Amino acid sequence: MKKIRAAIVGYGNIGKYVLEALQAAPDFEVAGIVRRNASEIPEELKSYVVTDKIESLKDVDVAILCTPTRKVEENAVKALALGINTVDSFDIHTQIWELKSSLDEVAKKNNSVSIISAGWDPGSDSIVRALLQACAPKGISYTNFGPGMSMGHTVAVKAIDGVKAALSMTIPLGTGIHRRMVYIELKDGYKFEEVAQNIKNDDYFKNDETHVMQVENVDDLLDMGHGVHMTRKGVSGKTQNQLFEFNMQINNPALTGQVLVAVARASMLQKPGCYTMIEIPVIDMLYGDKETLIRHLV
Amino acid sequence: MKKIRAAIVGYGNIGKYVLEALQAAPDFEVAGIVRRNASEIPEELKSYVVTDKIESLKDVDVAILCTPTRKVEENAVKALALGINTVDSFDIHTQIWELKSSLDEVAKKNNSVSIISAGWDPGSDSIVRALLQACAPKGISYTNFGPGMSMGHTVAVKAIDGVKAALSMTIPLGTGIHRRMVYIELKDGYKFEEVAQNIKNDDYFKNDETHVMQVENVDDLLDMGHGVHMTRKGVSGKTQNQLFEFNMQINNPALTGQVLVAVARASMLQKPGCYTMIEIPVIDMLYGDKETLIRHLV
Repeated sequence: MKKIRAAIVGYGNIGKYVLEALQAAPDFEVAGIVRRNASEIPEELKSYVVTDKIESLKDVDVAILCTPTRKVEENAVKALALGINTVDSFDIHTQIWELKSSLDEVAKKNNSVSIISAGWDPGSDSIVRALLQACAPKGISYTNFGPGMSMGHTVAVKAIDGVKAALSMTIPLGTGIHRRMVYIELKDGYKFEEVAQNIKNDDYFKNDETHVMQVENVDDLLDMGHGVHMTRKGVSGKTQNQLFEFNMQINNPALTGQVLVAVARASMLQKPGCYTMIEIPVIDMLYGDKETLIRHLV
Repeated sequence: MKKIRAAIVGYGNIGKYVLEALQAAPDFEVAGIVRRNASEIPEELKSYVVTDKIESLKDVDVAILCTPTRKVEENAVKALALGINTVDSFDIHTQIWELKSSLDEVAKKNNSVSIISAGWDPGSDSIVRALLQACAPKGISYTNFGPGMSMGHTVAVKAIDGVKAALSMTIPLGTGIHRRMVYIELKDGYKFEEVAQNIKNDDYFKNDETHVMQVENVDDLLDMGHGVHMTRKGVSGKTQNQLFEFNMQINNPALTGQVLVAVARASMLQKPGCYTMIEIPVIDMLYGDKETLIRHLV
């Protein structure tokens, strides 16, 4: 069997878990790791090619982009133009359509495939949301996140004057309403009450129930577990009160890394263009022959 | 907008709910209803063409097969050969691959599309099972059914000597283990204890915890609600203990009817051939333009 050769672009938290998912996948091999500082090579990368340019890697089928979300587009364009498929977990919900439109053009022009926003939300959750809408076209879906760390909110807290270190936890209260539990270390010379009030007034927090707490060491609280509780109550045909629920409790970057590898596999089976996860058949994400998968899963 | 013209083939319990789902769908119109006895026309069908031959209906795009499972193949072959797409909720899990292989050939030869085993299990549950395997490739999934009526088990009870009427309810006990609660009316001249023992010895029941109860009127107990509780505990990459759960409490034929209409829509977008639900993109099942759906659901 010819293995799929994947490059990991960006080697932070997600990149590390993508490497593990690639090592665990029987149909992949690691073509190499692309990172800005290619001379700094951690122990677990010693047996791989590490470079600062994807062009220097051999026969890359797919680039798994593990850069910050705002760097996704430029890295995707570069790889797609080389005829390399790309996958990413771009997570700015309001800009997904624009990213898709832009990458679709590049991919088609270069005979390559891009699958975007492939993590767990957006990502696997998106498939569940779409499926539940197919099952009950009228009704309301709620996606409740947590308990778990919100990257976006944590970054927003860190930007506030007087904050030395921060963690913002998302706590689900149901019907898409969330409590924010904010833990901060305070810089010398700042008053906790004032900093706390500035956090609560911030755009990220002003519409949510927010509690701010001062701690000695934010790092001691960090845990990469996260959760989702999704519900839909709706109408199938003309029948009311159809009830659906999807829950998960997961290691956040581990699931993101696994989904990225699954869609990297799927990218090999699509026609040139850019797709979100709801646009590709779920079976394409799975390792194994079609007959076995259908016998086992359908 | 040109509407999709759907024929309902078979007008029992599922057919009635398919009609409601078609009436509720903005992009469909009813081409007609095919039933054995086309002269017996219930009130709600008075405004539609009712016939005993699909050939007499005009411009049918897709035939929604609502016949008993064992009649699916012959009806599908007939429609596909006319260039009409078909969808069904064929539910004998062990024969799905064989049905797919057989219909795939007919569909390709006649430039038509078939989507099979499209109810909730097999069907929407299959998509969730496949998705969870993509999220955590190693691990165990359990599908727990109920509480709800099992058609197969009820038919098996009715075949036992001395049973006048029967209902077999499936009760989920977790980890894919089910209790069978069997309610029967007894024929005159039979001993309840003997009939109950024969039920418990039947192949359908002998491996499950089974309780048999005698009732005055089985019909008074009938309720078309059903449920699913699906779990997966598995490994993403090398990270253990990823936990997933999918639950629903639904009207059984209403959900089946809605899923059939959703895949009838999707059938219009596939290349000729035969597919299970895990082989088609979820977005194809939804009404609406791609941009709106992606902005709303991804």
